Amino acid sequence: MSDFAALWAEIAEIGRASSGGYLRYALTPPELTLRDWFRGQAQRRGMTVTEDGNGNLFAWCDEPWAPGTVLTGSHFDSVPHGGGYDGPLGIVSAFLAVDRLPERRKIAIGAFVEEEGGRFGVPCLGSRLLTGMITPEKAAALTDRDGVTFGEALGSLPTGKSAPIENLAAFVELHIEQGRALEVPVGVGSAIWPHGRWRMEFTGTGDHAGTTRMTDRRDPMLTFAHTVLSANQEARLTGAHATVGRVEAEPNATNAIPSLVRGWLDARAVDTATLDRLLESVLKRANERAGVDGTELSVVAESVTAEVAFDTELARRLSVLLGDAPILPTGAGHDAGVLSAHLPTAMLFVRNPTGVSHAPAESASDEDCAAGVEALATVLESLT
Amino acid sequence: MSDFAALWAEIAEIGRASSGGYLRYALTPPELTLRDWFRGQAQRRGMTVTEDGNGNLFAWCDEPWAPGTVLTGSHFDSVPHGGGYDGPLGIVSAFLAVDRLPERRKIAIGAFVEEEGGRFGVPCLGSRLLTGMITPEKAAALTDRDGVTFGEALGSLPTGKSAPIENLAAFVELHIEQGRALEVPVGVGSAIWPHGRWRMEFTGTGDHAGTTRMTDRRDPMLTFAHTVLSANQEARLTGAHATVGRVEAEPNATNAIPSLVRGWLDARAVDTATLDRLLESVLKRANERAGVDGTELSVVAESVTAEVAFDTELARRLSVLLGDAPILPTGAGHDAGVLSAHLPTAMLFVRNPTGVSHAPAESASDEDCAAGVEALATVLESLT
Repeated sequence: MSDFAALWAEIAEIGRASSGGYLRYALTPPELTLRDWFRGQAQRRGMTVTEDGNGNLFAWCDEPWAPGTVLTGSHFDSVPHGGGYDGPLGIVSAFLAVDRLPERRKIAIGAFVEEEGGRFGVPCLGSRLLTGMITPEKAAALTDRDGVTFGEALGSLPTGKSAPIENLAAFVELHIEQGRALEVPVGVGSAIWPHGRWRMEFTGTGDHAGTTRMTDRRDPMLTFAHTVLSANQEARLTGAHATVGRVEAEPNATNAIPSLVRGWLDARAVDTATLDRLLESVLKRANERAGVDGTELSVVAESVTAEVAFDTELARRLSVLLGDAPILPTGAGHDAGVLSAHLPTAMLFVRNPTGVSHAPAESASDEDCAAGVEALATVLESLT
Repeated sequence: MSDFAALWAEIAEIGRASSGGYLRYALTPPELTLRDWFRGQAQRRGMTVTEDGNGNLFAWCDEPWAPGTVLTGSHFDSVPHGGGYDGPLGIVSAFLAVDRLPERRKIAIGAFVEEEGGRFGVPCLGSRLLTGMITPEKAAALTDRDGVTFGEALGSLPTGKSAPIENLAAFVELHIEQGRALEVPVGVGSAIWPHGRWRMEFTGTGDHAGTTRMTDRRDPMLTFAHTVLSANQEARLTGAHATVGRVEAEPNATNAIPSLVRGWLDARAVDTATLDRLLESVLKRANERAGVDGTELSVVAESVTAEVAFDTELARRLSVLLGDAPILPTGAGHDAGVLSAHLPTAMLFVRNPTGVSHAPAESASDEDCAAGVEALATVLESLT
């Protein structure tokens, strides 16, 4: 068994659901178990572990926050029933890459909290706190579906931008590729599409499904359904991505017209102008349909992330270093995207043969993962 | 304060949610509290209380199941955040009507369990068990959203058709009217539209919302949304009622294309042929769209109830007795509809000024409710 396969097996069953996917929400028991595993791996390698007061964990080969340190790593948390590679692959690979270096270097491994936003609704929450892109107060007040706040889950008010991140020389995040864009084992990231999530609340009048005449209805499920289809059409027209993957109806009873339907729009596009145009078109059509249905629509932007271009020189250098590895953009958000506004940042992608991510079918071969470890080790050695 | 207002106030806060609506699911604490209240009311009037082994409660002025007994009553359970009148009005009115009779008659008051199907999915479950229209085994195995079975909630296997219902001379259910069909305080029911509920499961491929190309998607939310709009259009075209009020997505994450969307179709029409035609059209269009989306659709009929015509002679007689009260059909299912296949059955409707039902805005004036009590007393006196 390769050292990758052996180390991977240690965490493969943690938080695994009967679906085959993972339930590893931030700061819940499976993710806490993974954090303990992280501490154990660091200790085994003589690395110092620190926590930044925001829920982010770091393991240091040298002094914590020593100037010139290169940070690698990723996140443990998953979307509901997500795949096992999205996040953990970058952390497992980081430990194995450190093992390959001939001597101790100024290298650190990070495990960022709540990257997916699967529990508290704001993706990259840990890296946003670390870089001051969200205030501790706002982050602390975010609630999960059970009404637990991030502050309560963390056990304290986050400390926010308290660490000297300017001491980091670079951040390199290794991640499973999430489309079908990579035909060799490893690629280098160029950019992240601008993206955002918008909560749309469609309000109508709750009523009896059996007795209310069709013409008397103000049924928000109709406006919601029309908006789902509009978003899909507009995304295809503009070459963007739009998804409504989460929905809640109230009272959600078979024999009652809903009084409220909540739908979340996830939209991404190649540039901000395209994304803005997409959102404008979708909301315009939604409001027109609301007029027809006698319903009302309110929209809250839960998070909007501008386009990220990773350090172009660094990407070119890593591509050459890795034997002309392909350079490719991604539609997915990452902590690397948040950190890229503050320090030189790069991503390495490992091939995903199914192209599936955020679902149990997400996968990567052990051979490709091992190639990812070698590539990361090469990069870390070159940068330190 | 009228005796109606006083008695109504005793139960008005039981199971009331902050929405103003009620959470009175069958055999949960609020409904169990109402059942205790029922026993107390019966005791106060010297009525014998029996339970039929299916969860249905009866209070008897005379010997239980004495031949010639006229049964009245309704149900306590609500849809989620439903109004307070749908069900309980018929039980409260029954006790007050009994109070108005000059001497003891062969009259019984029933409180049927799980009329709404709001907890276990099959409406009129209590009356279906009592009349043998569902087997005890099938009923016992029905589960609520937490996986609790009806058998577990009841504490035993239901006894099914164990009571001599042929001894009942008639059943008269008083109920709030649920549309805007009544312009006087009290009307008489003629028929219940045939109706049913179908669970539609749309299956696709879960995937990452950010990275999956629009053309690579098999997104079941699209097929669901299209079907919601089709059902609405087809219902309008056929003069029927169709509603999708309940939806569940998996994994229900903002940044994941769903692998599965479940939607429940509630459909009702003036006759069975129209209902069948409606369902056929909706499912044909849903399957066509599934072909476009690359998704799959499976449909389970959770309950289908044929058209019910109440006893025509009895309805005419009651209308005359109540001063030519209007005779009207309803799109809503009722225990009276189930019992009508087994004994002479009638319904009295009390005016609903908002026309809203299954929602907090459902209401009836105290004056109209008092008129309902008088009408029910007149009817019970005439029938016994």
